[in-house]
Amino acid sequence: MTSTSARELEHPQCGEIRLEAVLHALSDPMRLQIVRYLATLGRDGEAPCSAIDLVVTKSTSTHHFRVLREAGVICQIYQGTAKMNRLRREDLDELFPGLLGTILDADAAQCRRLGDGH
Amino acid sequence: MTSTSARELEHPQCGEIRLEAVLHALSDPMRLQIVRYLATLGRDGEAPCSAIDLVVTKSTSTHHFRVLREAGVICQIYQGTAKMNRLRREDLDELFPGLLGTILDADAAQCRRLGDGH
Repeated sequence: MTSTSARELEHPQCGEIRLEAVLHALSDPMRLQIVRYLATLGRDGEAPCSAIDLVVTKSTSTHHFRVLREAGVICQIYQGTAKMNRLRREDLDELFPGLLGTILDADAAQCRRLGDGH
Repeated sequence: MTSTSARELEHPQCGEIRLEAVLHALSDPMRLQIVRYLATLGRDGEAPCSAIDLVVTKSTSTHHFRVLREAGVICQIYQGTAKMNRLRREDLDELFPGLLGTILDADAAQCRRLGDGH
């Protein structure tokens, strides 16, 4: 095993992604914030964890990204010491057509309704 | 307070329903099973808790219905000693257009894909 593969993070394959886990991953305001941000980057856009200001400790932030990764919502790949994150939009759209877009729309509607970003 | 109102259960008003709570409520296989069943009853269809065979203890079943009620996903009203349940489809569709339908479609797609009712 090379040092590169030793630093590969585990992801569910497309067929292993479960709706319940995706909904759980998206049921937290901070995780929704991460997904909302990554969605603005376009289909293959990616960003380091540090690009998203969650105002929590590093370990809490790492936890939220891990929940999203393990549910199959995001892909995380090391680049140097940083983890780069991108939405698994194609996988999610293939398994659950329209789901991610509808949830992002619902999130945007709620942000507008509450007028405070939440 | 009449004995009837004393037995009224608390529900969030439409404007108090939050996306995160709805997604959390739907992130459990048994709660998805309840919602899937109620959705088959049509727009104003309702059913007692006992109509849905969850194969769990009464207290666990009661917990799952309560999570759905407190998130604003279902309405529960006493009729005699039974609680009647119905989906708050209109409220959810008003707040989050398409969300409930898309999640039910995703659930149906997953059931077909896994071929085991989950």
